[in-house]
Amino acid sequence: MKHKLLVLTRDNSAYYEAIRRHNLPDLEVLDDSPNSVFEADVWLAEPKLAAPLLAHASQLAWVQSTFAGVDALTKSRRHHHYQLTNIKNLFGPMMSEYVFGHILALYRHHTKYSQLQRNSHWQALPLRQLRGKRMVLLGTGDIGQHICQTAHQFGIEVIGVNRSGTPKAPFDMTLSIQQLDSALPGADLVVCVLPSTDETVNLFDKHRLQLLKPGTIFVNVGRGDLVDEQALILHLSLNPTSHAVLDVYRQEPLPEDNPLWKCQNAILTPHVAAPSTTEDVVRQFADNYLRFIANQPLNNQIDFALGY
Amino acid sequence: MKHKLLVLTRDNSAYYEAIRRHNLPDLEVLDDSPNSVFEADVWLAEPKLAAPLLAHASQLAWVQSTFAGVDALTKSRRHHHYQLTNIKNLFGPMMSEYVFGHILALYRHHTKYSQLQRNSHWQALPLRQLRGKRMVLLGTGDIGQHICQTAHQFGIEVIGVNRSGTPKAPFDMTLSIQQLDSALPGADLVVCVLPSTDETVNLFDKHRLQLLKPGTIFVNVGRGDLVDEQALILHLSLNPTSHAVLDVYRQEPLPEDNPLWKCQNAILTPHVAAPSTTEDVVRQFADNYLRFIANQPLNNQIDFALGY
Repeated sequence: MKHKLLVLTRDNSAYYEAIRRHNLPDLEVLDDSPNSVFEADVWLAEPKLAAPLLAHASQLAWVQSTFAGVDALTKSRRHHHYQLTNIKNLFGPMMSEYVFGHILALYRHHTKYSQLQRNSHWQALPLRQLRGKRMVLLGTGDIGQHICQTAHQFGIEVIGVNRSGTPKAPFDMTLSIQQLDSALPGADLVVCVLPSTDETVNLFDKHRLQLLKPGTIFVNVGRGDLVDEQALILHLSLNPTSHAVLDVYRQEPLPEDNPLWKCQNAILTPHVAAPSTTEDVVRQFADNYLRFIANQPLNNQIDFALGY
Repeated sequence: MKHKLLVLTRDNSAYYEAIRRHNLPDLEVLDDSPNSVFEADVWLAEPKLAAPLLAHASQLAWVQSTFAGVDALTKSRRHHHYQLTNIKNLFGPMMSEYVFGHILALYRHHTKYSQLQRNSHWQALPLRQLRGKRMVLLGTGDIGQHICQTAHQFGIEVIGVNRSGTPKAPFDMTLSIQQLDSALPGADLVVCVLPSTDETVNLFDKHRLQLLKPGTIFVNVGRGDLVDEQALILHLSLNPTSHAVLDVYRQEPLPEDNPLWKCQNAILTPHVAAPSTTEDVVRQFADNYLRFIANQPLNNQIDFALGY
């Protein structure tokens, strides 16, 4: 049986090229005409581009997301008539780079040393060391596990937080989201890599942000709707020694008039912590495609009810 | 037998306090009067403060350095009539923080993203990832080993360079200093944690800096005399995509008129990568003191001929 693939990304030509190199058997790659939506049984797609077309996807059997985050597909209550898989084990190393790059820049006074250099001024600032600090890490999947390993390499104790609270390696302790409040006051670092689900929306509201001690660094590289941005802005202005490092926002691109941009102790980046490369995504798609045609279970399947 | 201790640091009172807490047996802590130099058989000292007094140290049996770097003592050709020990296994984690904080800040465009934030401008810059990069790491002792482990956590291949070239864990490969030139053209990152010895002075001269490919990040957290600073300034202006991250200099504090200060692609810090805390140093001193009075071999002994 011949399978028909629809590619829905912001750079289809790069994907066509990468897919061609894999020489996948019995696969016809369709063009991006409207007809292809009706015909294709396999989609390789960015979740937000795929979501509005699902109602017309009469032949669809499987969607391979090009991202880790698939909430644009799981949050819809309808159109769950296909298998959904996402990308895993690519983002951990990039997320570790992002998270520790920014934490270390703050701990080691990069901005202040850069000012001193501009003034040709030799002056040592107080040392803050990561060793012995405590991180509360929300999200214990492959990304969280990589960040945890990196934290351990720097001598940080890591409390993982997930839905069930089931103990998980390599975390020093694992709590459920319901137990989160007990861990926040002891945290030096709070890092969020959670997917967006009903349980995580507005998790960091005014109440929870108040549980953080002054000086805490709050990092969000998961989903923007985890945080009440107005409450965060208030929290940061009340706690000038605290910092937020944000890569994701409730609205992206972040509107030019959003007051977060001007927040002195917020560090903002435009959703760039862990982009996937076409080559890496297509490699995972190709592996899964061979499983798909052999009727084997697909890798990285998403449970629509859980949202991850 | 009663032992007599001279403390020679820039903050003696903190050391007196920490030593007192350890309740070391048979130890009299002398004050810092000139007489103490003649009387003490044990010194706990910063190398540069100890060096000019050695000629008068008639009773001296052992110097515990408060630093890792002891070249101020080993480079003198005279006065090697005592045992010298340094501090180890404290600096690796701090050096890793410093080295990867700065490398990640450069790879992940911290400065440019900060400018974009000031302009409320949402724009993604090209991703540079550490995974798959190659580091040449000069110095394979406890500091180099910690940096190597951290590099591995980020997916970096590490070639260690030391005097003999003897293979050493956890390096992917080990070369001798004589083989250094063969490794430099393939390096994305060059990190130096070498002590200052006859073999390392001016190791990075004009010739070796020319072997680095454009875009290479050169980090020196060992000793300043490893680098020909004039050659480095020339190298950086000829290679605008390359960077140097420097914590140590030929003259410290770095003179206000040194052109390094104004070098656009140099990041300078005032010898702060890995300061020792009094408490940590005194803990290692106390361990060694108990060995000293029990006539057991001291930890972290320095070979004056090798210089480390």
